[in-house]
Amino acid sequence: MSAPAVILVTPQLGENIGSAARVMANFGLSDLRLAAPRDGWPNPRALPLAAGALDGPVAARAFPDLAAALADRTRVLAATARGRDLPIPVYGPGEAVADLAAHDAPAIVFGPESSGLENADVARADAIVSYPIDPTFPSLNLAQAVAVFAYAWRARAASDAPPAPAPIEPPAAKAALAGLLDQVDQELDQAGFFWPPDRSEGVRLRLRAALTRAGLSEQEVRTLRGAVKALVEGPRRRAREELARRADAKNEARDG
Amino acid sequence: MSAPAVILVTPQLGENIGSAARVMANFGLSDLRLAAPRDGWPNPRALPLAAGALDGPVAARAFPDLAAALADRTRVLAATARGRDLPIPVYGPGEAVADLAAHDAPAIVFGPESSGLENADVARADAIVSYPIDPTFPSLNLAQAVAVFAYAWRARAASDAPPAPAPIEPPAAKAALAGLLDQVDQELDQAGFFWPPDRSEGVRLRLRAALTRAGLSEQEVRTLRGAVKALVEGPRRRAREELARRADAKNEARDG
Repeated sequence: MSAPAVILVTPQLGENIGSAARVMANFGLSDLRLAAPRDGWPNPRALPLAAGALDGPVAARAFPDLAAALADRTRVLAATARGRDLPIPVYGPGEAVADLAAHDAPAIVFGPESSGLENADVARADAIVSYPIDPTFPSLNLAQAVAVFAYAWRARAASDAPPAPAPIEPPAAKAALAGLLDQVDQELDQAGFFWPPDRSEGVRLRLRAALTRAGLSEQEVRTLRGAVKALVEGPRRRAREELARRADAKNEARDG
Repeated sequence: MSAPAVILVTPQLGENIGSAARVMANFGLSDLRLAAPRDGWPNPRALPLAAGALDGPVAARAFPDLAAALADRTRVLAATARGRDLPIPVYGPGEAVADLAAHDAPAIVFGPESSGLENADVARADAIVSYPIDPTFPSLNLAQAVAVFAYAWRARAASDAPPAPAPIEPPAAKAALAGLLDQVDQELDQAGFFWPPDRSEGVRLRLRAALTRAGLSEQEVRTLRGAVKALVEGPRRRAREELARRADAKNEARDG
């Protein structure tokens, strides 16, 4: 599976070329082709927005026209939002990347910023890629259009690989969780929380369900046990300190 | 199924806000929230790149901070490329939009251009969204990140995928959850739990993440608030009773 070339037909703004290069590099694409760029190539306005993508990750080359840019390609899709009278299949981005992935030397073609692809350019393509755009606000920025395609390509490639395990800690053994839940139960019992008794059992079970649902890890169970202990012991300690302080005050008053 | 709000935390460049608004409108999203935007709001630099999106299709509002911006949300995902030590599930964009579609008032949060989200912001989220970025060129432009999310959302809505199963009880609004987390924070602070200070911030965030992950309902939040109060007040009350008992004993000894 070789990655598709991205072909921009007569791009007008160097900034958009730079932004497109940057997001191509983000998603692992490296072959950028400029067919008759309006301001020539290289274009210094592209560099700031490329954020380094044009210094190695992405190779950008200019061609005199679209025919030259896609000459070595075996499968070409044209990105366009507008409906066409041409008898060419229309894919969504997901279908498009699946189609391109099945070919050796694929490419996707984007038109100029203001006008989009001409029919003559679309007719060179094997299929159209049409994004699920809101028809009330259809004007998609060129670099954003490249971003969506590059993401869709990468997401497809990534989905072929086994998903990375989520870096969540494994949940605690149920015995450890039960220790926490029992501790909470007992402390709340002592605090008179489960009252009146006819309502208490439901509340007790709701608390257990909520804390169970969090899928707490061993360390989180330990942290929460410490937190519950601190909540109870803090006031106890302060009460003891207060008792000692009062006793001292009494003694001082007596001895003074 | 209600569309997610897009929250930008301290966006630096008005141009990126405008570009984000434009691509939101392209893909049918309309609720843009700016948490503490660097240059205030409104920002005239956003308008040219919004291409009209801020004149109706997208409503952009500024908030003093992230907590205020997500107060009415019931499910919040944080977009971040960096690995985190926080025990929060990590989704790809496809899983993320499926998750958000199952909730009534969802939101996705993006960090500032240069630094991304801070851990304290990520800890407010129910899950992380991580894009399948090429690790050799990971710096994704803010508006491009919004573009990919907006496309993924629209693509899911366009496909007739059955919605993910709804949770048993709808989760509480984030403002209610924040009330519980702040209460726990303050009581544990008073109890001297967060000690030593150099370790305390990590423990604080871990606690928040664990309680956030449970997806607590409004009623569960109320129950837990009552439970925390009882844990603290029970010992206080018993200490007061003990003080009163000792005072009585002293008085009896003196009067006896």
